[in-house]
Amino acid sequence: MSSTTGQLKLKCSFLLQGQTPLFPRIFGHEAGGIVESVGEGVTELKPGDHVLPCFTGECGDCHHCKSEESNMCDLLRINTERGVMLNDGKTRFSKNGKPIYHFVGTSTFSEYTVVHVGCVAKINPAAPLDKVCVLSCGISTGMGAALNVAKPKKGQSVAVFGLGAVGLAACEGARMAGASRIIGIDLHSGRFEEAKKFGVTEFVNPKDHDKPVQEVIAEMTDGGVDRALECTGSIQAMISAFECVHDGWGVAVLVGVPNKDDSFQTHPMNFLNERTLKGTFFGNYKPRTDIPSVVEKYMNKELELEKFITHSVPFSEINKAFDYMLKGQSIRCIIRMDA
Amino acid sequence: MSSTTGQLKLKCSFLLQGQTPLFPRIFGHEAGGIVESVGEGVTELKPGDHVLPCFTGECGDCHHCKSEESNMCDLLRINTERGVMLNDGKTRFSKNGKPIYHFVGTSTFSEYTVVHVGCVAKINPAAPLDKVCVLSCGISTGMGAALNVAKPKKGQSVAVFGLGAVGLAACEGARMAGASRIIGIDLHSGRFEEAKKFGVTEFVNPKDHDKPVQEVIAEMTDGGVDRALECTGSIQAMISAFECVHDGWGVAVLVGVPNKDDSFQTHPMNFLNERTLKGTFFGNYKPRTDIPSVVEKYMNKELELEKFITHSVPFSEINKAFDYMLKGQSIRCIIRMDA
Ligand SMILES: NC(=O)c1ccc[n+]([C@@H]2O[C@H](COP(=O)([O-])OP(=O)(O)OC[C@H]3O[C@@H](n4cnc5c(N)ncnc54)[C@H](O)[C@@H]3O)[C@@H](O)[C@H]2O)c1
Ligand SMILES: NC(=O)c1ccc[n+]([C@@H]2O[C@H](COP(=O)([O-])OP(=O)(O)OC[C@H]3O[C@@H](n4cnc5c(N)ncnc54)[C@H](O)[C@@H]3O)[C@@H](O)[C@H]2O)c1
Ligand SMILES: [Zn+2]
Ligand SMILES: [Zn+2]
Repeated sequence: MSSTTGQLKLKCSFLLQGQTPLFPRIFGHEAGGIVESVGEGVTELKPGDHVLPCFTGECGDCHHCKSEESNMCDLLRINTERGVMLNDGKTRFSKNGKPIYHFVGTSTFSEYTVVHVGCVAKINPAAPLDKVCVLSCGISTGMGAALNVAKPKKGQSVAVFGLGAVGLAACEGARMAGASRIIGIDLHSGRFEEAKKFGVTEFVNPKDHDKPVQEVIAEMTDGGVDRALECTGSIQAMISAFECVHDGWGVAVLVGVPNKDDSFQTHPMNFLNERTLKGTFFGNYKPRTDIPSVVEKYMNKELELEKFITHSVPFSEINKAFDYMLKGQSIRCIIRMDA
Repeated sequence: MSSTTGQLKLKCSFLLQGQTPLFPRIFGHEAGGIVESVGEGVTELKPGDHVLPCFTGECGDCHHCKSEESNMCDLLRINTERGVMLNDGKTRFSKNGKPIYHFVGTSTFSEYTVVHVGCVAKINPAAPLDKVCVLSCGISTGMGAALNVAKPKKGQSVAVFGLGAVGLAACEGARMAGASRIIGIDLHSGRFEEAKKFGVTEFVNPKDHDKPVQEVIAEMTDGGVDRALECTGSIQAMISAFECVHDGWGVAVLVGVPNKDDSFQTHPMNFLNERTLKGTFFGNYKPRTDIPSVVEKYMNKELELEKFITHSVPFSEINKAFDYMLKGQSIRCIIRMDA
């Protein structure tokens, strides 16, 4: 693997899902690593730096990177189609002379990978990589969606749709913000026991009710919750999350990735009645600017990551990690590269 | 007309539209007046006070009135169905012993009316009622939608859909906030010349283009406007207003009142890409708390109301005012009660 302008090579560890027509390809985007070498022009990082690779980058120069509000970098924003490096349109992986494609600029199911310098956050070298690696996607996404976007005020009520890793991180964010009630909603009642560790105070399974879940929540909360976070990817949950917030001040935030043909539909009066709907990528964190301080939250014990990490396997047993995930047994499974 | 608890009688002037099955009824809700007498329990006002009646009230005690964010009072929120006073369920108007119903708590097409004390804002007695009367609904709504809800930053671009009185007031609000570009959108190109007086810098008539107007605006603005305000009541304009804001930070605000059967539809990725959609009633102003300070903006010459007032007729010629409105000739026509 060569290293060229704006890129760096890093030793990495750990996991996640994805689907795409571009093959063969190295998957994985949630990880922590150590810089092995840097390409020409890379001045921000040096070999030995500890970093988290991010599926969505930060060039620092575009309109988005310069805006205080956006983290959707024009140059390095997530791109699931692209399987090559930006500077020369080529891959840095190959087998028998044939290219192996990259995945969302990270490709971390690999002992070494090559990434654009704008797609890694340099973090505190004292932070244990086998814990803070989970901050490189899902946990930051959910927590940031709560802390940076929904922004519940102390004492407010929050509904979280979907109690996977992202939703549990949203619950954790709501708890950190001082929410008084955190209502977890999931189609699997089995998620509820675990969710208590993340601050969830009440549970609703839409399947247990004859009426739409937004009506159930409105009844529980005297007209609606103050904030709602959708972390499912289900269009029905997106609509319910919006319609369950209180008129006058309610804010709903979409986090789940919808299907290509989904349509968000609601009566416009639901907006006129002073409800707000937003969406977010990566919890509105700018990867390079903000993620180092999220790692510090863990170091300062404001944020507990251990409870998100339910399993750990050596790289040679990576398929077990997929099994745990697909069966809904794990929140996050660490894949140990050095084992 | 008797005056009872929480009510007051006032001498009023001026205009507006409405439609409802409850008849006979006294219409009109945009007005200025002088308190003639106050009912039992009314301590905030006394005869001679100058006031603006408001179609949506502020009880001061409910969850909404106590929230900093909402102006949607539980008790006095606009109710187009109710034609009676709240305390006894009766009307204060009658003819030959038969009740004449009230309209949105105001009924200002009348020399005298009786309203709930929570539905009038006490204003500076030096303010000319035949000018500041227009602040009792549409102008405050549009201006507040811009200043309180869309909140463009200095130098940002703003699109305003619909250049009626509400939309022009939204343009005026955008101008006051320091917007650099104000793009007016209307189906009638005749609106454009007038709109320049309200800060509009560019015009788009959707009928002049083959593609959706949101695409036209995105092309004009390198990806979308920073803020959009919909002031039409058209569901298509609502969707266009949302879809024409820039990803990453764009905020769209719905102001127009939709039809009962309208459905707001968009792809959820438009939210995920960090766009925000909100709606507002009465520009998020709390009528009693905030409207007096809007009147002061006029008194301090920060806000020019004269350009909204294109016509004036005596009460005996009120039907002329409807003609001007229906033909789109007027922005606001003052109906002079004392003439
Ligand atoms: N916006 C972003 O930047 C970003 C980043 C990471 C993940 N995501 C998305 O967030 C979503 C959640 O990710 P995850 O890893 O937690 O997924 P997950 O599959 O682990 O969890 C999703 C949970 O939602 C529940 N669910 C599904 N439909 C539901 C419904 N209608 N009502 C209630 N609950 C329902 C499922 O039972 C499951 O427990 C996914 O769509 C993922 O693609 C978005
Ligand atoms: N939310 C509130 O508190 C509040 C208060 C007052 C009025 N309103 C609503 O605001 C809206 C505007 O009020 P107004 O008095 O200015 O009305 P108006 O009829 O004077 O002006 C509406 C303008 O919108 C234009 N228009 C209609 N469809 C359009 C489209 N698809 N694209 C572009 N332009 C279009 C019309 O040509 C017209 O010029 C109405 O729906 C009214 O009910 C809401
Ligand atoms: Zn950038
Ligand atoms: Zn109230």
